[in-house]
Amino acid sequence: MKKFDLIGKDMKRVDTASKATGEALFSGDLILPRMLVGKVLRSPYPHARIISIDTSKAEKLPGVKAVITAKDMSGDKWGVFKYTQDQQFLPTEKVRYVGEEVAAVAAVDEDTALEALSLIDVQYEPLPAVFTVDDALAPNAPLIHDVYPSNINIHVKIDVGDVEKGFSESFLVREDTFTAPEDSYFQGEPYAVAAQFDNAGNLEIWMPNAGPHLKAKPLSNVLKIPLNKVRVRKITIGGAFGGRSEIAPADVICAFLARKAKRPVKIIYTREENTVATRQAHAMVTTIKTGVDKEGHVVARDITCRMDGGAYSSTGPIAVSVPFLCMEQAYRMENIRYNGYRILTNKPIRGMFRTHGRAFACGVDTQLDMLGAELGIDPLTMRLRNARQTGDYTPTKSFVASCGMTETIIRTGEQSGWKEKFGKLPPFHGIGIGTNSVQTGFPMGIRGGSQAFIKLNEDGGITVITGIVDNGQGNDNMIVQIAAEELGISPDDVQLISADTEVTPSDPGSYSMCETFIGGNAVRLAAQDVKMKLFKIAAGEFGVGEDELTARDRKIFVTSNPEKSMNIAKAVRIALSRNESISGEGSYWPNVDAKREWVKNPYGQLSETFSFGTVIVEVKVDPETGQVEVIEAWAAQDVGYALNPKVIEGQFEGGFAMGGQGGMLSEFHQWHEGRVLNPTHLGYMVPLAIDMPKINNIIVETIDPNGPYGAKEAGMSVAMSAAQAYSGAISNAIGVYLKDFPLTPDIILKAIEGKGKREQ
Amino acid sequence: MKKFDLIGKDMKRVDTASKATGEALFSGDLILPRMLVGKVLRSPYPHARIISIDTSKAEKLPGVKAVITAKDMSGDKWGVFKYTQDQQFLPTEKVRYVGEEVAAVAAVDEDTALEALSLIDVQYEPLPAVFTVDDALAPNAPLIHDVYPSNINIHVKIDVGDVEKGFSESFLVREDTFTAPEDSYFQGEPYAVAAQFDNAGNLEIWMPNAGPHLKAKPLSNVLKIPLNKVRVRKITIGGAFGGRSEIAPADVICAFLARKAKRPVKIIYTREENTVATRQAHAMVTTIKTGVDKEGHVVARDITCRMDGGAYSSTGPIAVSVPFLCMEQAYRMENIRYNGYRILTNKPIRGMFRTHGRAFACGVDTQLDMLGAELGIDPLTMRLRNARQTGDYTPTKSFVASCGMTETIIRTGEQSGWKEKFGKLPPFHGIGIGTNSVQTGFPMGIRGGSQAFIKLNEDGGITVITGIVDNGQGNDNMIVQIAAEELGISPDDVQLISADTEVTPSDPGSYSMCETFIGGNAVRLAAQDVKMKLFKIAAGEFGVGEDELTARDRKIFVTSNPEKSMNIAKAVRIALSRNESISGEGSYWPNVDAKREWVKNPYGQLSETFSFGTVIVEVKVDPETGQVEVIEAWAAQDVGYALNPKVIEGQFEGGFAMGGQGGMLSEFHQWHEGRVLNPTHLGYMVPLAIDMPKINNIIVETIDPNGPYGAKEAGMSVAMSAAQAYSGAISNAIGVYLKDFPLTPDIILKAIEGKGKREQ
Repeated sequence: MKKFDLIGKDMKRVDTASKATGEALFSGDLILPRMLVGKVLRSPYPHARIISIDTSKAEKLPGVKAVITAKDMSGDKWGVFKYTQDQQFLPTEKVRYVGEEVAAVAAVDEDTALEALSLIDVQYEPLPAVFTVDDALAPNAPLIHDVYPSNINIHVKIDVGDVEKGFSESFLVREDTFTAPEDSYFQGEPYAVAAQFDNAGNLEIWMPNAGPHLKAKPLSNVLKIPLNKVRVRKITIGGAFGGRSEIAPADVICAFLARKAKRPVKIIYTREENTVATRQAHAMVTTIKTGVDKEGHVVARDITCRMDGGAYSSTGPIAVSVPFLCMEQAYRMENIRYNGYRILTNKPIRGMFRTHGRAFACGVDTQLDMLGAELGIDPLTMRLRNARQTGDYTPTKSFVASCGMTETIIRTGEQSGWKEKFGKLPPFHGIGIGTNSVQTGFPMGIRGGSQAFIKLNEDGGITVITGIVDNGQGNDNMIVQIAAEELGISPDDVQLISADTEVTPSDPGSYSMCETFIGGNAVRLAAQDVKMKLFKIAAGEFGVGEDELTARDRKIFVTSNPEKSMNIAKAVRIALSRNESISGEGSYWPNVDAKREWVKNPYGQLSETFSFGTVIVEVKVDPETGQVEVIEAWAAQDVGYALNPKVIEGQFEGGFAMGGQGGMLSEFHQWHEGRVLNPTHLGYMVPLAIDMPKINNIIVETIDPNGPYGAKEAGMSVAMSAAQAYSGAISNAIGVYLKDFPLTPDIILKAIEGKGKREQ
Repeated sequence: MKKFDLIGKDMKRVDTASKATGEALFSGDLILPRMLVGKVLRSPYPHARIISIDTSKAEKLPGVKAVITAKDMSGDKWGVFKYTQDQQFLPTEKVRYVGEEVAAVAAVDEDTALEALSLIDVQYEPLPAVFTVDDALAPNAPLIHDVYPSNINIHVKIDVGDVEKGFSESFLVREDTFTAPEDSYFQGEPYAVAAQFDNAGNLEIWMPNAGPHLKAKPLSNVLKIPLNKVRVRKITIGGAFGGRSEIAPADVICAFLARKAKRPVKIIYTREENTVATRQAHAMVTTIKTGVDKEGHVVARDITCRMDGGAYSSTGPIAVSVPFLCMEQAYRMENIRYNGYRILTNKPIRGMFRTHGRAFACGVDTQLDMLGAELGIDPLTMRLRNARQTGDYTPTKSFVASCGMTETIIRTGEQSGWKEKFGKLPPFHGIGIGTNSVQTGFPMGIRGGSQAFIKLNEDGGITVITGIVDNGQGNDNMIVQIAAEELGISPDDVQLISADTEVTPSDPGSYSMCETFIGGNAVRLAAQDVKMKLFKIAAGEFGVGEDELTARDRKIFVTSNPEKSMNIAKAVRIALSRNESISGEGSYWPNVDAKREWVKNPYGQLSETFSFGTVIVEVKVDPETGQVEVIEAWAAQDVGYALNPKVIEGQFEGGFAMGGQGGMLSEFHQWHEGRVLNPTHLGYMVPLAIDMPKINNIIVETIDPNGPYGAKEAGMSVAMSAAQAYSGAISNAIGVYLKDFPLTPDIILKAIEGKGKREQ
């Protein structure tokens, strides 16, 4: 491997100082001249017909500058896919969950806005509501959307090989059902939007978002203005985790309020609103039937998963697919069937999530442990025997160009002392392993590629212009690191213009682990483009070929004779004096079979590459209280190549906290008739730093042939594997396999007592 | 000529609505969180040694966040050229004019800042001062700068042909001396700067400026930070007129205050400060000796011009050169000598100005009228006989690629009824003519070229990214108009990112009439670049050659068969789906002999092309009061090609107001020992709309071979010609040739009474 100056090193993140000092501005911090406060009136009913909305009193309240209802909009319905277009940003006929947007006001201050909300008179006709998948599927269940024949509007069906034959040929077959309720994203920053229009009808809008270009298009559609009049602007973002990819009612409402009031408007969600009215992760019930041979190899598997989608489709088709896709990437299997159903209920809307499917992923892994136990094979060996390998095709026909799954299993096993511990620990002391895989990019349609510009300054500094967004994970740093490395300059020489749809060229967004692979490649190509322009100049000056040159330490030199050198700044000035271009462009489009009709025909190259992860955790369970103490953890992931190991370790630990410590021990929602009872930090237990165990991070590198410098993604394989490892370790500690997640003390105590199911 | 959809039409300016509604923000309107008020302490002495500066009391005043003096800076001296580096932004040793910057404070509000200024104790040792060119050149005059051997630090010397031989061969020779005091730019917007630093040491700065990239470099130098850490940002600008091209002490002081206070700082100049502490136009004394043959052709000319430069060099070398250059471009002559001296005095600093040299330009024209009178040739005929022609070389060896001088003379003559009026009007009723020429770009060094990016959106809209700045003259509109025309889209489809040094590629700035010719060409080339990418796609779809296609009405079609068409948006989406670039780049470098050593060797191609103008005015003078009433005016200019006739007419009228109505009738400074007595609108008489005569605008087009669509510049030739026409018309009306400008009532009355010189 060529040695790099910056790539592969623990470069301090470029956003560290601004975040540590409070200099970084989030959407909620924005103050624009004459800005109004926007507030949203929400449905108190889980399901009701809207009879009338009278806003006249609110409009008369002094200080109120705009009131909007569905009448101000076109009534168009939005959805990620054409066949899931079911959500109006303000509904015309019905509300479908407690907290749904009904009307909104913009006023001079918050008190006035809240008072105005209280003056809006909405007459509802309550309708029967359904709050569980079972109720939604009952024969006489109310139909939530007229546009679908039933409350099941998404059905992903995959059938590869001959599953029944596989079962008949299996040595051992098990069928188990696993459940998990919703969990929340609980981003550090509650959702906030600020919007303003100018006289020419141009919209500027700021919000935490995982895809500025992805948000601009639906805003253009719903506002009926051209795309070039929608400017989604860069802002510091406090997390996304899959939940901020799509256009949100808050975005649209804020823009409509600003246009109507002819003044800037800012909406800051309360923590309750952030929980209820943005997105949640799907609740699900998963039935898994698996057949194995004597050695534990999976011969056939049949999974049925029923996901509670809440009131609208959102990114449902993706969310229903991804848990399966992760599994089929992680484990070899010939005969596999999947039926994934997304069922509409009168609950908040569910979307994509960083750890897709606790009841699914943990179910698969827990059952693997159960099968192993019956065969006398330990969980680690079970995984080694089923692990995906480089050069494989997945069941749905994705080629796996690089795969470090086996290495992640072996190295976590060795470092954790698995062999010495598994089956040999004292009572209520256990160890568990989880393994999983993630797509590095799930780009769809014409917005799946990324472009970048780079312009050189006459002193050798550069500006990178790219649509890549940083949700907090360090993408800004990644861009700077790649551009500086390629051009042989210092990170300090690089300025970044990113995630501003007016300035920056198209980019798919920072969802499904796209950005390093797709955006990073585009930035690298742009840097190489400008470098070659400078090399052409230097080659002429030195009388050598362009391929004989190196750029490093702000210099271009003859590789074989570094004395022959010129400052990059000088090369730029020569270019300027010759009227030659001092800017460059790069674009990268992943080589995938991206199709909008993916759900109907889910075969083909899904992602250009995949990451693979293994997590082992060692736990003690207090049999008196059901409390779990995590002694230590080992997290390994094949990241392809570690562009910045420290940032990757941060992603590992964040993923571990979300998927494992929070997702498996404490995070879930409690409900009363469609109402979330624990929407804030007081009731919804997100782990704190002090709750976290010691995590040993193990970075595995396979150098993907197409990733930038061989890189893939960082952290999501760990997040999912961590969830699975918690399930295995706690089951191992208490001697009972657990099937209902998360593993709260009551569940654990009841399992110890031989009961098992959380009372709802 | 090919027909255009937008070019050549009266497109409404893109900035009209924002300026008419007050939406447009100027630097003084900016409000940044925690912003402080900056104020500058100024010298009360015209010339004094700084003994000590004690800021301790000011620093202790509650609310004061930063106080700076020269000690906070490096002491580096700045100048446009290496050999004129004589200005410290805060002086260490001496002050050299009343109003010079000595110290500055940043405080929480204006009252506190002003009180802090009053608490700064500066001890001066007053030095003898000089206020006129004569005093500055007297044998024992105090030397204003130690770095120069005398108070003359700039001497431009041009000598072509054999001047003495020319005089000896002339039929008639005259020598006259003309004078004019300073005039002011009086921009609509007083100078204001806002600056802030982030934690990473990046500067963002907003100010009215004619060259963002030109300002960034000295800021980088003086702040000792790399160029990529200086971001001069776009802001609405209320005029420049040559006076806002260079870095100003206010810019530097504001940045130093912001860095020291670690908070944003804004300095808004008072109208007095804008007059005294930005720039003024040079006062001058010009002696012109001209020899003509019997037919009035100029055979030889020798000019000596002494310009009062004030206390520092500023853009002096340019300002001393340009009046001569305009003249040599306008009129044919074989034998010509010029000695231009810029003399330092203890007065405010003088810089480039839209109408360079009343005493020079009006002197040349007035003397031409006098020579004509002696020969019995009328002024219009004198000009026709001496007019520059296409294909000529100027005396200093610039090739004149296109020249409509003769046409401007003939058309203003015809439309004004010159023949019927000149010499035939009643007493105190006169008509006069002025002719002049202007360079369209005087770009120097490596910053003389312009680059532009264009990115396409998937719906066919575009963003243009260019360093071109709009000082108010309509450059933003020009960019949009050119880009939309080239791509066959609507102006509404175009977004503009301009004049923001971090984002936009290099551009020379909007001075010396650069922007249309240089920047406009760059934008056009960038648009053609992206158009060719789209044509390549459409050509493939239609099975034709790329040269058989046309882009118009948001469509690409086969020129010979317009039914074969696709929307531009579709072509973009095809490009995206094929992973092809949807952005383009253009750069334009004028073909000139730009050299930093121009003053030492002033021969070679100065500008790629030149504009030519003629103004005729008809006046009545009241012999009792000396008041001048302008009856009507005719303003013609060879603009190459009129990109937007309405904008050009606006430039004609603005130039006419500044050069003629204001510059020749009412605008000048009055002094007392180096102190300006009339720094505000109360005493300095800028004409109002109500003061303006009817102006008949005559656009002459010569289609320059290299200008964008054949365009050159608009308005400056008119401004200068207007000044000359006023001089001629008033002289004609009263029957006395006037040599001291501007032509205020006292001058006119004294001329009528046979005296002539204004009492100073």
